[in-house]
Amino acid sequence: MSDAFEGVSEVLFIPYASSDHDSYLEGARRFTASAPFNLVGIHEYDDALEAVMEASGIYVGGGNSFLLIHDLHEKGLIEAISRRVSEGVPYVGISAGSNVACPTMMTTNDMPVIYPPSYEGFGIVPFQINPHYHPGGILWREGEDVVQHFGETRSRRIAEFHQHNPTPVIGLFEGTFLRWDGESATLVGGSAEIFCVGDTTLRVEHGAILDGSLSPR
Amino acid sequence: MSDAFEGVSEVLFIPYASSDHDSYLEGARRFTASAPFNLVGIHEYDDALEAVMEASGIYVGGGNSFLLIHDLHEKGLIEAISRRVSEGVPYVGISAGSNVACPTMMTTNDMPVIYPPSYEGFGIVPFQINPHYHPGGILWREGEDVVQHFGETRSRRIAEFHQHNPTPVIGLFEGTFLRWDGESATLVGGSAEIFCVGDTTLRVEHGAILDGSLSPR
Repeated sequence: MSDAFEGVSEVLFIPYASSDHDSYLEGARRFTASAPFNLVGIHEYDDALEAVMEASGIYVGGGNSFLLIHDLHEKGLIEAISRRVSEGVPYVGISAGSNVACPTMMTTNDMPVIYPPSYEGFGIVPFQINPHYHPGGILWREGEDVVQHFGETRSRRIAEFHQHNPTPVIGLFEGTFLRWDGESATLVGGSAEIFCVGDTTLRVEHGAILDGSLSPR
Repeated sequence: MSDAFEGVSEVLFIPYASSDHDSYLEGARRFTASAPFNLVGIHEYDDALEAVMEASGIYVGGGNSFLLIHDLHEKGLIEAISRRVSEGVPYVGISAGSNVACPTMMTTNDMPVIYPPSYEGFGIVPFQINPHYHPGGILWREGEDVVQHFGETRSRRIAEFHQHNPTPVIGLFEGTFLRWDGESATLVGGSAEIFCVGDTTLRVEHGAILDGSLSPR
């Protein structure tokens, strides 16, 4: 976070993925207490658009991606944030905040608890991110037992996405960051799997450098 | 399936949750080969609405709920199927097919791979179903290891739904059926968990009888 917001003293925090903006801002402030920047909540401004136009750093938190994209569209912030970031304002998105940084938020894992006017995101990166990624089948604990789950695997869901959309998808394992400089992406701190239509899944590790179509450089 | 479609010789199969209608119909025919009814695919008719109006049984398969609800709305079938079922035509929904039987499909686990014109479902039952339900945190296997996953639990996702919608939700464990007769629901073959705004989660087992607000009778 400190690397991404180097030289920025005040970062605009967008808590729309959560229902309780005040307590989410408070939590984010505790989380970044040792960082050399302060967080200010977009909901503390009278005019959210003005807050974006004046921001020198933007941090979008996690929660529910449908709620987040709903509020961003309702408040008319999609184009403004997209433009500010293209002008050089650093952007950090966590979980749902990484989903909306993509062309659409269609590779979210979240439940559609609200009907948004559109799935269109900021398009900061030219590919899709699937956060909280894990490969293969899942298990859950019932008391002492570990029970197998038969619902769709994550890669099955991403394959369904690719039946309707050609955009490449990167599944980020938990704890992994992806830094995008406008031309290439660097994987930091963990692993990822890459899904391109017609290709087999590619596993990449910390330090991998990818271009906009998610091909390793 | 044979119980639900007792006395019906031909059942209309709706494969819209899958992209490949022909192969899904073929699979469903193999699955029901020993049943005393034949399946006919809605995509084999020139006029899908006419197929619904003439059907004496309706079976909606699983796959992606967003794709399913998209096609049902695009083809103008929501109201027609809802009306036929209220007139007494038996309906069976599996996975995504159970999501769309609810007032909305908002308690799906699927990925929003397509933007539907609405989330409205058939409203055959007055509550929401969450299929493939499991409680608590999930795990996944990495080679020999079992790894913990930190993404939202299912009950956390249902709590997010309840921040925006008051409708009660029943989470059906895999392998569990819910039979609804227009007034009450009977749990068959497995367990479920019930989520009502303001109440603690209630676990119910095979044989439980619930009213339309998911209160045990």
